[in-house]
Amino acid sequence: MKKPLILICNDDGITAPGILNLIESVKDLAEVVVVAPDSPQSGMGHAITIDSTLEVNKVQLDSSLSHIEAYSTSGTPADCVKLALHEILDRKPDLCISGINHGANSSINVIYSGTMSAAIEAGVEGIPAIGFSLLDFSWNANFSACHAVVQTLVSEALEKGMPEGTVLNVNIPKTDGAPVKGIKVCRQARANWKEKFDKRVSPSGKEYYWLTGDFVLLDQGEDTDIAALEAGYVSVVPTQFDLTAHHSMTHINSWDLKI
Amino acid sequence: MKKPLILICNDDGITAPGILNLIESVKDLAEVVVVAPDSPQSGMGHAITIDSTLEVNKVQLDSSLSHIEAYSTSGTPADCVKLALHEILDRKPDLCISGINHGANSSINVIYSGTMSAAIEAGVEGIPAIGFSLLDFSWNANFSACHAVVQTLVSEALEKGMPEGTVLNVNIPKTDGAPVKGIKVCRQARANWKEKFDKRVSPSGKEYYWLTGDFVLLDQGEDTDIAALEAGYVSVVPTQFDLTAHHSMTHINSWDLKI
Repeated sequence: MKKPLILICNDDGITAPGILNLIESVKDLAEVVVVAPDSPQSGMGHAITIDSTLEVNKVQLDSSLSHIEAYSTSGTPADCVKLALHEILDRKPDLCISGINHGANSSINVIYSGTMSAAIEAGVEGIPAIGFSLLDFSWNANFSACHAVVQTLVSEALEKGMPEGTVLNVNIPKTDGAPVKGIKVCRQARANWKEKFDKRVSPSGKEYYWLTGDFVLLDQGEDTDIAALEAGYVSVVPTQFDLTAHHSMTHINSWDLKI
Repeated sequence: MKKPLILICNDDGITAPGILNLIESVKDLAEVVVVAPDSPQSGMGHAITIDSTLEVNKVQLDSSLSHIEAYSTSGTPADCVKLALHEILDRKPDLCISGINHGANSSINVIYSGTMSAAIEAGVEGIPAIGFSLLDFSWNANFSACHAVVQTLVSEALEKGMPEGTVLNVNIPKTDGAPVKGIKVCRQARANWKEKFDKRVSPSGKEYYWLTGDFVLLDQGEDTDIAALEAGYVSVVPTQFDLTAHHSMTHINSWDLKI
């Protein structure tokens, strides 16, 4: 039987330890092709490149991964998936996985996440997809606990398929290498960021800002991704790209919309 | 009574006719402050600027809008909203409106839309918000039909408020200036893009790509935004930023997730 094909993307760039760990975890489960940005793209949300050109270069991964087919692109994570599906791959992948992101994409962070935008882009094109993130921003993060998580979820996705219109947002707690407590299916916690702008003055006297902020949890539910992560579990949030707020239809239909 | 405060953003940049038309339509309904990108940001999705700095400049709008407080920023649409709420405005706006985008943001395009990312960013911060888009990419688009649409929806939003966790995605059909047929509350049509990459070779021999593609409607429902627009109506899709796919919970919970 032909091996399944897995497309691997990320938003931290093709040299990030996170994506190398992701490749390592699945390379014996499937045929793997990697298409990832040539530089970090964190916070890119679902950006695509429509007003400039894109470049693609075949690259050689290091040592134990040197036999894996891999490409870097000048585009965003969503661009990488589009390029992979329509220019690079000669067949439709059975699964697209993205990450492992260096840092959390739980709760409202899903909407800013380049990692998840790659997974969502694949989902829109009808391909089962999973985004993986580790709750550790460090480039030298310890990815040991991720291996079993990735293998479990990838195996299940390949075997059981993904419900239509759904991709998975997987966040993995930071550990010193010890195994996680388990995996929980959750909903996205309500939260936002309380922004602070760090205002500075350049040597030439021009004011500029750095975006900083504090995460504000607005949700005490025990069934959220934040609650699972705080308890030491991996959170798996089934995530959709039909953004229709069906629960608000009645309210908006009560408006006087005659013009 | 104090006038309500409306924050106005867009993604085509502060000089775009679309935002000037939006300001014109609401300037007598409320106090207005404009914070918009200094250059076009189409296709930016929900990108934010986390690895570089942001600049803000007070600007003078032309002629009849010269009394309106306005700022341009070097950031994305989502950055503009964050800067407005946390650095520029001295009180919380009653409403944030974004657009009028030159081009459609109906159906799946909502996830790539800078216009909608500004509205969603405001919604995440608890501010009622509406994104407006006209189905005409031209810089010289005819915005005449938009005026009544904007005034109707803004007045209703200010009077009746927005359901929690909801922002509105409003698309307006292209007309030659004739009024639209009416306004319909809709769901997001299922669709995707069939990408084509236009591959070229630079003068120095390097290959590069332009992203192009065809819109593919996967949904024959009569209650969708696409159906409303094709029939000559304005589409209003209540849009949410809790992306949890509740309908997929049972499926994913049936997976073997023991590790």
